[in-house]
Amino acid sequence: METDTGALPKKQDFSEWYNEILWRAEIMDVRYPVKGLYVWFPYGFAIRKFVYQHLRELLDRDHKETLFPLLIPEQEFMKEAEHIKGFEDEVYWVTHGGTTPLEVKLALRPTSETAIYPMFALWVRSHADLPIKIYQIVNTFRYETKQTRPLIRLREITSFMESHTVHATWDEAEIQVESEIALTREFYRNLCIPIIISKRPDWDKFPGADYTIAVDAIMPNGKTLQIGTVHHLGNHFSRTFNIQYEDKNGEQKEAYQTCYGISERCIAALISLHGDDKGLILPPTVATFQVVIVPITIGKRHEDVLAAAGKLKNDLENAGLRVTLDTRDLRPGAKYYWWEIRGVPLRLELGPRDLDSGKAMAVTRTGEKTTICLANAAEDTTSILTGITDAIRAKAGEHTKSHLCTTHTMDGLDIALNEGKVAVVHWCRDRTCGDTIEEKANSSLLGTEVRSEYIEATDGPCIICGKPGKATLVGRTY
Amino acid sequence: METDTGALPKKQDFSEWYNEILWRAEIMDVRYPVKGLYVWFPYGFAIRKFVYQHLRELLDRDHKETLFPLLIPEQEFMKEAEHIKGFEDEVYWVTHGGTTPLEVKLALRPTSETAIYPMFALWVRSHADLPIKIYQIVNTFRYETKQTRPLIRLREITSFMESHTVHATWDEAEIQVESEIALTREFYRNLCIPIIISKRPDWDKFPGADYTIAVDAIMPNGKTLQIGTVHHLGNHFSRTFNIQYEDKNGEQKEAYQTCYGISERCIAALISLHGDDKGLILPPTVATFQVVIVPITIGKRHEDVLAAAGKLKNDLENAGLRVTLDTRDLRPGAKYYWWEIRGVPLRLELGPRDLDSGKAMAVTRTGEKTTICLANAAEDTTSILTGITDAIRAKAGEHTKSHLCTTHTMDGLDIALNEGKVAVVHWCRDRTCGDTIEEKANSSLLGTEVRSEYIEATDGPCIICGKPGKATLVGRTY
Ligand SMILES: [Zn+2]
Ligand SMILES: [Zn+2]
Repeated sequence: METDTGALPKKQDFSEWYNEILWRAEIMDVRYPVKGLYVWFPYGFAIRKFVYQHLRELLDRDHKETLFPLLIPEQEFMKEAEHIKGFEDEVYWVTHGGTTPLEVKLALRPTSETAIYPMFALWVRSHADLPIKIYQIVNTFRYETKQTRPLIRLREITSFMESHTVHATWDEAEIQVESEIALTREFYRNLCIPIIISKRPDWDKFPGADYTIAVDAIMPNGKTLQIGTVHHLGNHFSRTFNIQYEDKNGEQKEAYQTCYGISERCIAALISLHGDDKGLILPPTVATFQVVIVPITIGKRHEDVLAAAGKLKNDLENAGLRVTLDTRDLRPGAKYYWWEIRGVPLRLELGPRDLDSGKAMAVTRTGEKTTICLANAAEDTTSILTGITDAIRAKAGEHTKSHLCTTHTMDGLDIALNEGKVAVVHWCRDRTCGDTIEEKANSSLLGTEVRSEYIEATDGPCIICGKPGKATLVGRTY
Repeated sequence: METDTGALPKKQDFSEWYNEILWRAEIMDVRYPVKGLYVWFPYGFAIRKFVYQHLRELLDRDHKETLFPLLIPEQEFMKEAEHIKGFEDEVYWVTHGGTTPLEVKLALRPTSETAIYPMFALWVRSHADLPIKIYQIVNTFRYETKQTRPLIRLREITSFMESHTVHATWDEAEIQVESEIALTREFYRNLCIPIIISKRPDWDKFPGADYTIAVDAIMPNGKTLQIGTVHHLGNHFSRTFNIQYEDKNGEQKEAYQTCYGISERCIAALISLHGDDKGLILPPTVATFQVVIVPITIGKRHEDVLAAAGKLKNDLENAGLRVTLDTRDLRPGAKYYWWEIRGVPLRLELGPRDLDSGKAMAVTRTGEKTTICLANAAEDTTSILTGITDAIRAKAGEHTKSHLCTTHTMDGLDIALNEGKVAVVHWCRDRTCGDTIEEKANSSLLGTEVRSEYIEATDGPCIICGKPGKATLVGRTY
């Protein structure tokens, strides 16, 4: 691969840092010859694997994994009017098979409602068939005309988890929405990513939904990144696609639905929030390698050290840890640099003197030094990794807290946003006031019903008209 | 879901049996509104998950998993002349984003050589970068004009494992081909699927390859199903895509390549070879559930039995087994039937008398009865499952052996093929003789250099011209 030269841009120059870290840490290759499409390097793919493995574990508690086709026939795709409006400009169309024009154009799914719901209409017959809770992790496509950005704004979203549920009543669907939010909280807690939950304003909800609950993270530059959405679909799609069930009294009823998505933006947030001037910092849960062992074999006792390093690797792997042993013919300093930029949470250094003392030097990715006892290596290492996870989570929490504020004036809002913050203001929920906030502050009204451990959501007079208002999240978004 | 009524067609009516088992055992829903596209039911998806998890484990020993874009720009796709000829009639083209015609047409990958190799050209610089061994498991697309068939002939192949390697020399690439063949043998051995390996004739090799080694299985109706291919690509693609490396002497050299694929046809073979008149028979390695526990709670001691069944489930799950406990309000007979058609390898029945004796009745999917000791449940069950795996493998091996024969005359070949067999004949490797064999016997010349534990490959006079010939596999194929 490429030779790794030159310094990484400082994290405070976030855009440059982000672009560089992606290839320097071997996450993605951006040189694929189509705009908005990227290649996962093996090292980055492993992070993706562990992230989605974790998401699957959470979903498998009460959803079932399945797989629907990528190609959606035009007539199905065009059935739900709101939905079409939301997607018609950005759908890729397959029009030819070989040199033959297709009789029916096929859409590459931008999301799978219109692929899945015709099947739900066949699957749902009686109340006994409900609820249905399925998910799939698939590639989806958007013809983005805006600037594309790896993991953030893509033409092929390679890793879209979409969950779809069907329920007997509106209320049951609402309970499901809350259950998906709880799942998302747990997922992001394990990735050490602080989130803010809010209800998107009506004009920004999912096309065809009753309402949309969104999950945002605050990126290093203060912009928000939407990293999850849960939609209460009401009976919009069940009417369109004729998803009905016979209730206990033999009556035909319309079903109610939810859908819910998390894309590889979760990995964009993971990389961006935790990394520093030296490179990636990966939380142990999803790190490609949790531990790198660097044998220090300068001079004598070369074989002894290598044997001990091999044994240490085995001991840790037997305890379920992901470990790499770096035996390359490079100076230790070059190896340290190599693994720092790739974000390995813990480095263990093992030299001749360590063998004598039965210990190894342990250095965390952020430079804290301690030792582990070789006779108790797995337990000592696991305990250090737990501490690392806590520290990463705490640091990201502080970042988020310090980038959130409450303000009561438009001037205050402007200042907050220009300082790279996300603000909570009071808003009366009137569209005109909402538009004024967005235009004057060159911002997005992210949502109401703000739920976050990082800021309190109170009531107060609308920042524009002074009528009673609710806490509303305002920021500049990706 | 649908009510399960009526008898399954007999396995000897293989085509009907296959179509019915797919939805009766909840593998795939064939009602998706586009020809050649199918939906994985959750039960079938789990089989797919375990099959590909197993394949990943084998590949991860010395390949790295990665992920490349689905969309290939026309100019890259059109670079390799042989390759285009092989695929131009069956490639889906994306021509529009929204209502805007694309400047460059994009192909949906039918296979990923032309997506991956431009990147290999960037990745390979020096001999120190070699070998490269990567794989991905992705959806691929073929505009099939022939009759489509779930898992066998598809327009969206949902589960294509494709491995791609780069080497310094032709010989190293050949060693890699053999290594992939060994991996494939191990994979299919664990699925209990007997395979026959041969070298495809030149006119049937992969477009752009030096040679193609294929893996075939003999289906219940005697037709062969190609369930894996390994290709030595020589330097065809490295020339086209400019994949070069600097050797130790500073000279620029062309690289040599292999690629290798296994699709969801492996699951078609799994279903077809092992199933019987009562339904699926799943080998424990990849079964959605390896064990179903049916509590017999008719009459008294209802709670005791349920508690014991719950404990049994826990004991087995703690030992790593996949278990379902069927507490539905149905007669035991209905449950037996339900799980038989779905191919669960082992059923444990637990009633009041079993509690007293500390045992449970164990019934294999093919009807063998024994008991397990509740105090030793995990060990006893694991041991029965091992026996089941061996029996499934042996039965499939017998099927394969009995459907293979050697013949020395065209009449004998005709008879063998009409009896639903696959034959080994001697062939001089001359194209004219090959065409004559295929035309006269309405068959396919599958390959030479036959490797199989089920039949001996000897030399002998060509079945057409009488010149010296080599053992050659001839059959009727899917
Ligand atoms: Zn207002
Ligand atoms: Zn001949």
